[in-house]
Amino acid sequence: MSQPKRMAFFVSDRTGITAETLGHSLLTQFDALNIEKQAVRFVDTPERARALRDRINRHHQEDGLRPLVFSTLIATETRAIVKEATGLFIDFFEAFIGPLEHELGVKSELTAGRSHGMNDVEEYSRRIDAVNFTLNHDDGSTTSHLAEADIILVGISRTGKTPTCLYLSLHYGIRAANFPLTEDDLEEMQLPNSLKPHRDKLFGLTTDPARLAQIRHERMPNSKYASIEQCDYETRQAEALFRKLGVPYLRTTMKSVEEIATTIIDMAGLERRKMRPHHPQAHI
Amino acid sequence: MSQPKRMAFFVSDRTGITAETLGHSLLTQFDALNIEKQAVRFVDTPERARALRDRINRHHQEDGLRPLVFSTLIATETRAIVKEATGLFIDFFEAFIGPLEHELGVKSELTAGRSHGMNDVEEYSRRIDAVNFTLNHDDGSTTSHLAEADIILVGISRTGKTPTCLYLSLHYGIRAANFPLTEDDLEEMQLPNSLKPHRDKLFGLTTDPARLAQIRHERMPNSKYASIEQCDYETRQAEALFRKLGVPYLRTTMKSVEEIATTIIDMAGLERRKMRPHHPQAHI
Repeated sequence: MSQPKRMAFFVSDRTGITAETLGHSLLTQFDALNIEKQAVRFVDTPERARALRDRINRHHQEDGLRPLVFSTLIATETRAIVKEATGLFIDFFEAFIGPLEHELGVKSELTAGRSHGMNDVEEYSRRIDAVNFTLNHDDGSTTSHLAEADIILVGISRTGKTPTCLYLSLHYGIRAANFPLTEDDLEEMQLPNSLKPHRDKLFGLTTDPARLAQIRHERMPNSKYASIEQCDYETRQAEALFRKLGVPYLRTTMKSVEEIATTIIDMAGLERRKMRPHHPQAHI
Repeated sequence: MSQPKRMAFFVSDRTGITAETLGHSLLTQFDALNIEKQAVRFVDTPERARALRDRINRHHQEDGLRPLVFSTLIATETRAIVKEATGLFIDFFEAFIGPLEHELGVKSELTAGRSHGMNDVEEYSRRIDAVNFTLNHDDGSTTSHLAEADIILVGISRTGKTPTCLYLSLHYGIRAANFPLTEDDLEEMQLPNSLKPHRDKLFGLTTDPARLAQIRHERMPNSKYASIEQCDYETRQAEALFRKLGVPYLRTTMKSVEEIATTIIDMAGLERRKMRPHHPQAHI
């Protein structure tokens, strides 16, 4: 079924992260259509705005379908220019700033680049520190500063520990370490020694054995490591260990790193430690 | 100036990333106010919806100010329950789904968890592979697969190479490597040998010498490494080298990792390689 193509532009004064996030969210609701997405960032001069306007109009003519324009433009002049184009203009700020101003009883500050910029230097440093912490505490590589971790992900190989830790640190400034469970740990059904003092910070990741075997197979085809028997054994032992120790855990099968990370924040109550999320700070 | 506190809730069926992005972006426009932000994720049962409704009402009574509720709830039942609360309900889907359905001539699929879930397994694997690639090619640690990089960030120590690479891989599935410039490289004004075959993939990061000295000072107080003379020298040489070789570069001073990453994508034309951004896929 070949559908006619329609363009969608995510347009912003700055990084475009908010426009992309919101636009993608809306478009996931129309998944059957053939929509080609393009981010247009840093539209911060009348020249750039005019070039974009002309590009939208050109696509309209060529495709025969109006482009969708998801905009977080704030500056009045550039916004007016892009709005001259014949696309469907979805204006995130216009839609909500009015009701908010009314409710809050103040005018908005209408300044671009607030949401993904470096608003708060101290906050930002904390976030970069968290990334460094995570890199230094990946896969059990060091144990010296585990006491400073906000959370320690633990699990067998290939359950998503590393990307999840990076997401937690990069976005939420959470000092996330991760630690592997070895065959010995599984056999003896106990934690590695260096984790024992930190039981209250542990969070287990596990996954579906069949999916795990598939992932491992891509790395080491036909190995014992990738065999379904081995994956089944490791998963079963790991989950039994988590249950025995009362360590909360999550099956990551078919979950994205965003889903895993936010679920952990929720289950472990990490938000209560007053973190400010950081993609959410959508660069406008 | 102590302002009365008002609550803002970011409410979602799933990860809450879209709701947080939207809410934060809008609230940056009202920075002077005292607003306490809280994400409420996975509101996917009537019980959870009722608990939230009561919580909103309680805050309204206690604070004397109506909470703001930024919602990406999709399910009709839970949404109706949360809407019973006395907060200001900012409904992301309601605002835009209508105009989009009209334009696109189809009904939306109204299914939660689309935008930040694992819609496309192959796409998702590519993204996780990119993260692994970045981790294996951090700080010049290996050079064997540099030919497979989409981009190679190069620069002196502490200019933001590592977090930027992680952001590029985690969000955009870009295989981003990074490589340090050593004192020898700077003195001889030439690239490390292993980078020479990849000149067209290089992107330089540099920064303001005074800010660099400050950052390095936190790591190694009173060292030559952190001295303003050294930082000044290294920055000057690195920029001269980039100019000599025609390597595009960016000063990262006071730029967030989101700003650096999206600017690089823009300047290096990485989007043309058909990447799909991945925070943008806001988990609803």
